[in-house]
Amino acid sequence: MHTQADRPAVTVVGLGSMGSALAGALLDRGYPTTVWNRSPGRAEALAARGARVAGSVAEAVAASPLTLVCVLDYPAVHAVLDPVAGKLAGKQLVNFTSGAPEQAHETAAWAAGHGIGYLDGAIMTTPPGVGSPEMMFLYSGERAVFDAHRAALEALGDPLHLGADPGLASLYDAALLGLMWSTLTGWLHGTALVGAGRTTAADGAAPTAATAFTPVAARWLTAVTGFMNTYAPQVDAGRYPGDDATVDVQIAAVGHLLHAAAARGVDTALPELLKGLMERTAAAGHGSDSYASVIEVLRSPAA
Amino acid sequence: MHTQADRPAVTVVGLGSMGSALAGALLDRGYPTTVWNRSPGRAEALAARGARVAGSVAEAVAASPLTLVCVLDYPAVHAVLDPVAGKLAGKQLVNFTSGAPEQAHETAAWAAGHGIGYLDGAIMTTPPGVGSPEMMFLYSGERAVFDAHRAALEALGDPLHLGADPGLASLYDAALLGLMWSTLTGWLHGTALVGAGRTTAADGAAPTAATAFTPVAARWLTAVTGFMNTYAPQVDAGRYPGDDATVDVQIAAVGHLLHAAAARGVDTALPELLKGLMERTAAAGHGSDSYASVIEVLRSPAA
Ligand SMILES: NC(=O)c1ccc[n+]([C@@H]2O[C@H](COP(=O)([O-])OP(=O)(O)OC[C@H]3O[C@@H](n4cnc5c(N)ncnc54)[C@H](OP(=O)(O)O)[C@@H]3O)[C@@H](O)[C@H]2O)c1
Ligand SMILES: NC(=O)c1ccc[n+]([C@@H]2O[C@H](COP(=O)([O-])OP(=O)(O)OC[C@H]3O[C@@H](n4cnc5c(N)ncnc54)[C@H](OP(=O)(O)O)[C@@H]3O)[C@@H](O)[C@H]2O)c1
Repeated sequence: MHTQADRPAVTVVGLGSMGSALAGALLDRGYPTTVWNRSPGRAEALAARGARVAGSVAEAVAASPLTLVCVLDYPAVHAVLDPVAGKLAGKQLVNFTSGAPEQAHETAAWAAGHGIGYLDGAIMTTPPGVGSPEMMFLYSGERAVFDAHRAALEALGDPLHLGADPGLASLYDAALLGLMWSTLTGWLHGTALVGAGRTTAADGAAPTAATAFTPVAARWLTAVTGFMNTYAPQVDAGRYPGDDATVDVQIAAVGHLLHAAAARGVDTALPELLKGLMERTAAAGHGSDSYASVIEVLRSPAA
Repeated sequence: MHTQADRPAVTVVGLGSMGSALAGALLDRGYPTTVWNRSPGRAEALAARGARVAGSVAEAVAASPLTLVCVLDYPAVHAVLDPVAGKLAGKQLVNFTSGAPEQAHETAAWAAGHGIGYLDGAIMTTPPGVGSPEMMFLYSGERAVFDAHRAALEALGDPLHLGADPGLASLYDAALLGLMWSTLTGWLHGTALVGAGRTTAADGAAPTAATAFTPVAARWLTAVTGFMNTYAPQVDAGRYPGDDATVDVQIAAVGHLLHAAAARGVDTALPELLKGLMERTAAAGHGSDSYASVIEVLRSPAA
């Protein structure tokens, strides 16, 4: 892969699985890419693909107007970049390291104090997904940095700028990972339920395979996404008309799930938690409202 | 809407919100439709759309080779149909009433004892979705009944026959509703998180609206569906290679979610439960495996 003359140079600091994927996507799109990693061996594969390997982090950040950093955590970001803050002055930094919103704020303040343009990023895919335009890359912080480097950021995935508050990318990251774990756990629970044996052995059939259940579950998730789109304006309005299905109706149905899970030796902690939230929602006066009203109890944790 | 000569007659027993939607979809497709409901007033709107209103449940089931029943619960099914079991002999019955797999088995045995062809159904949409070919209608029980009436069932939604075991539709229903509640609760939790206030008031920005967060969440769910498709064969194989992201990595990340939720006064019960499941999974030796290995602990509930 040859670099292209019209592409600005980019530096990637941190070549773990994710940093290597970022550098690889830039090389694939012809960006002159300089790389650096604490343990030098990890740069070799990228060097073979055309990356320039810097001998020091100072040399790395000096090579490009834009540096991407992707290391284990925020303490590692500071361990690597604090000594070269002066070299980054007047340049731009995008930090893809996962962390808390407070850490993003602190690092944005550190960058501002050194005259470094700063964006905080969250990568909503795994390394094999990097470079695909369907994958979301979330950014927050200085809009001007986002606009200036939009083309390079598009080499990594679909870039979304969430706002000027540098903590937003981390906050969305936490919220979306929570949605992922909830969904995957609900799917695994359902997979365990349909796979745990038939309600009768009369037909002698084998339990349903995960590969048979999952296409049905995936189709159902598109319907569930439709419910989310219906419920989002209800959340914003703070009114939850239960025209389609009420919390009381869901409470009746969750009983069947609990019963089926218990009968098959499948863990009941998740349906118990869901039932408890629905019952608190009904007790708060939302029994005839839609499931969206559950947000009211999520915002008012039990003592 | 005029009935069409080539369409076989269908009877719908139970005209609550769902039964009325079923009858309406049949009328829309030109099926000669006979309806009956315990409280007669509910038949009026359907009569105006061309339904024939039976004066008794016996008259209703006598009018068509196929009867659909959709009432509150299985006891209501028996209250309505037991007295007319003789009239249903040699005909076919599809029961859309929600219940447990055991109830479906019991009703299938009752039908077999009276020479009634029986299918148990689960409707994976709300009444406004009935009639849309995207919506899944799940069936289990006699395949011959499904094949004989496939065209009429297609008027209601996309029909999927799961197998001969009549309990399968109810079991899938429970599993899919569990996935729905898990996903909706994860989405509402994330919505509460991003809407509960910024990490700093410095930019004076308003919290993120549900209608702003939800399109990002919906896009993310398509990526999560991709993870499900990757993980399903791992579940069937009982091996969970953690190439993309390991349980240990997720345990580190769930800490950020817990911290962010606590800092914003959002309920932490859901992330605590997810973290607990992940920790049990890691303790069972799956720390370096993928998230799919969580199914191992769901199948072995904590004492
Ligand atoms: N992998 C994913 O699917 C994914 C997805 C989204 C976000 N992320 C985030 O991306 C970041 C990197 O993840 P990864 O998967 O690339 O992890 P990884 O493969 O374990 O790589 C960790 C990287 O951090 C470096 N590092 C750790 N401590 C350091 C220190 N004190 N000083 C300098 N460098 C240090 C390592 O350098 P050495 O080689 O010298 O050890 C290595 O380059 C994490 O914050 C992760 O949460 C990952
Ligand atoms: N609504 C949904 O989104 C949805 C989705 C999937 C599945 N379902 C299932 O569909 C079924 C019906 O739900 P729905 O929403 O239509 O409920 P609904 O609007 O409350 O209607 C209940 C129906 O059951 C009848 N009924 C109740 N007890 C009876 C009895 N002892 N004898 C005779 N009839 C009796 C009612 O007759 P009266 O008019 O005389 O009271 C009415 O026709 C339930 O099992 C529900 O779980 C509903």
